[in-house]
Amino acid sequence: MANPSAAMLVIGDEILSGRTRDANMHYLAGQLTEIGIDLKEVRVVSDDRVAIVAAVQELSQRYETVFTSGGIGPTHDDITADCIAEAFATTIDVREDARALLQTHYDRQGLELNAARLRMARIPEGAALIDNPVSVAPGFRMKNVHVMAGVPTVFKAMVASVLPSLTGGDPLISATLRINRGEGDIAGPLSELSLAHPNVSFGSYPFQNDGIYGANVVARSSDSSALKSAVEALRCAFPDAEE
Amino acid sequence: MANPSAAMLVIGDEILSGRTRDANMHYLAGQLTEIGIDLKEVRVVSDDRVAIVAAVQELSQRYETVFTSGGIGPTHDDITADCIAEAFATTIDVREDARALLQTHYDRQGLELNAARLRMARIPEGAALIDNPVSVAPGFRMKNVHVMAGVPTVFKAMVASVLPSLTGGDPLISATLRINRGEGDIAGPLSELSLAHPNVSFGSYPFQNDGIYGANVVARSSDSSALKSAVEALRCAFPDAEE
Repeated sequence: MANPSAAMLVIGDEILSGRTRDANMHYLAGQLTEIGIDLKEVRVVSDDRVAIVAAVQELSQRYETVFTSGGIGPTHDDITADCIAEAFATTIDVREDARALLQTHYDRQGLELNAARLRMARIPEGAALIDNPVSVAPGFRMKNVHVMAGVPTVFKAMVASVLPSLTGGDPLISATLRINRGEGDIAGPLSELSLAHPNVSFGSYPFQNDGIYGANVVARSSDSSALKSAVEALRCAFPDAEE
Repeated sequence: MANPSAAMLVIGDEILSGRTRDANMHYLAGQLTEIGIDLKEVRVVSDDRVAIVAAVQELSQRYETVFTSGGIGPTHDDITADCIAEAFATTIDVREDARALLQTHYDRQGLELNAARLRMARIPEGAALIDNPVSVAPGFRMKNVHVMAGVPTVFKAMVASVLPSLTGGDPLISATLRINRGEGDIAGPLSELSLAHPNVSFGSYPFQNDGIYGANVVARSSDSSALKSAVEALRCAFPDAEE
């Protein structure tokens, strides 16, 4: 049986303008691979209502689980929660449990829960909150869409809150062999191996170090015995490979 | 007049599995911003024919310029060129000028231009080659889609080959103020400033250092005098801001 499928939507002008280098995609990809959920697609869009709503609708229909990052803070360009409500044709308002979390947090810090901060308690009708142990303002899950913060420390904490609730499949396991030959010499035998081991996917990632061309060849499978026999075949085909 | 729009398509299982952290998106985003082309969307898909073809068709219709990275090497999982041909309903075959480039390159290295390496000379009918000063195997432009390598050094070199051929708009310029207050205190005034300066976009990027909450507020515009007056208004609203 195929593993559950997932997509990610990264929201933020700062990524597309090159100001900020996204870190959340790489983190989520690794976490999902470990629990056997296949990240099939990632999209990055700007802080634009039409673009966000369309992407949420498309991805949530096409994949079993969707994760978003960005756009749930207190400022005017944080429009993700409203866009999620619009995408699912539901209402959005300040919710009492979310407001209570923020009130306690800001009372403790001696800060006012002003109108801007209260925006972070706006939750679409029907959503479930996602715990934020870093800075309290919650994320939420609306149907199959998990809405999380863009700040990497908060994103990671929210992913940790969400992962136990997800049902994964067979974790993808992999083995890497380093072959100090040009990718063009590796490609032919690798193609044959690929046909002979249909349950294993082979990837080749070339490198060049001090003028030496080579490639890391990665075999991936969720079937450990299939992976084992593929690696043995790889070693036969490339006796000079290093683990 | 609005700046030209662009999208990027990153192709590769290694990104979605978390094995490799993509670097090309951040690089391209910065380069396009400098020449006044608005990167509106990025998608990441796996080495899957159906997914690549659909994304190329959608993005090339929706945006003025598209850039792809990945999947043009010699191995069996390098299927981007074939997918581009399919997306534009054209044929693909080894092309003589591309083959000649590779032949000279491998002759010089004393390596055989074998069947796998010859795959890198397969170019869709009607495409124009993109120069690769790093490792010779060319990229290509098919209609408005620029097809480039995934290896970051090669990607950068190909971007440098392509940029002079692109017509940009007004470069986006920006100014950043560091404000040592919680984002919830910044959000209200920032929202008013945003309404008062319609040609400037304001972004707020929170940080937390040693327990101090603050945010970098970035004002962006392609109109330098609008940016100047927005920054003056920002300084008035936040007299404690640091440049």
